[in-house]
Amino acid sequence: MKTKLVIAAIASTLAMPLLAADSFSPYVDGKGQINLPKNFRSDFVHLGSWAVTDDKSAARGFHDVYTERKSLDHYRKTGVFPDGATLVKEIRKLETGPLTTGNPVHWAGEPAVWFVMIKDGKGRFPGNPLWEDGWGWAMYKADDPRKNAATSYKADCQACHIPAAQTDRVFVQGYPLLKKQ
Amino acid sequence: MKTKLVIAAIASTLAMPLLAADSFSPYVDGKGQINLPKNFRSDFVHLGSWAVTDDKSAARGFHDVYTERKSLDHYRKTGVFPDGATLVKEIRKLETGPLTTGNPVHWAGEPAVWFVMIKDGKGRFPGNPLWEDGWGWAMYKADDPRKNAATSYKADCQACHIPAAQTDRVFVQGYPLLKKQ
Repeated sequence: MKTKLVIAAIASTLAMPLLAADSFSPYVDGKGQINLPKNFRSDFVHLGSWAVTDDKSAARGFHDVYTERKSLDHYRKTGVFPDGATLVKEIRKLETGPLTTGNPVHWAGEPAVWFVMIKDGKGRFPGNPLWEDGWGWAMYKADDPRKNAATSYKADCQACHIPAAQTDRVFVQGYPLLKKQ
Repeated sequence: MKTKLVIAAIASTLAMPLLAADSFSPYVDGKGQINLPKNFRSDFVHLGSWAVTDDKSAARGFHDVYTERKSLDHYRKTGVFPDGATLVKEIRKLETGPLTTGNPVHWAGEPAVWFVMIKDGKGRFPGNPLWEDGWGWAMYKADDPRKNAATSYKADCQACHIPAAQTDRVFVQGYPLLKKQ
């Protein structure tokens, strides 16, 4: 336990991801705290995007979704995400205007929010309100990307994902790479 | 010359990309013919996306843009695309509907068209109407992804890219990874 605390203290000082006790994810510490992966845009694979153009929606923006190459490969072989898989949804402010391709066209401006899901096939964190339905859940706002602003899966995350309950809470219909080839 | 022809014949039989005389791009043959890269969605890095929701536009659809990791890294160091860099824009049919994130939301359905640009910093194909303004240009339709349906940069490609002339014909404002970090 002492060793773990020392490792955690060092990792925290360096702002590096903490290693979980069983290293199932480099983004999760031994207590289930999830960190936002760095460099996911260049190191992860793009699964797909969504443009929420609804003026009245709190989720208005351009949503880009990424996962690890190895998690993608596992899904394409088995149809499920592997234990420890990471999904990052980056929401950027919606830019809209006329371009040579049409009017309107929508694209992505400055980052606003990141959502992270970590696949947990073993129920590692019983009682932790952010680990339910087979995943760990996190949300980070652009003004404080180190702090998981979600405190409860049921209160902060579940409702939006109910329509995807049959596909392990992931809206796979928007992700061409996850479709049968 | 004979060796090159044999290589070209074998490559064509296997539907593999042809190697150019100087191998500057695995997607370009010695005459400047451009082939659509396979597996770009999983092997390339996602630069950014555009949602063209204009009902009257021929480009209506979800546009996802990808490049090689090494080309991205070069751009981030130097501010320009390296010789041989590949850009692929995949246009998928626009799916639109109400989701838990809002109404409307737009996402990507079946592929419709791919655009490919290959950076050529050496003017390798003088007189070839698809190699101009520092790039090779190609367009493939979903019903025939082996055939470059563009025949002339000036007639088929130039107009849309004029607003991006100051940034080497690429609409970099939509690509977060290309911005100064």
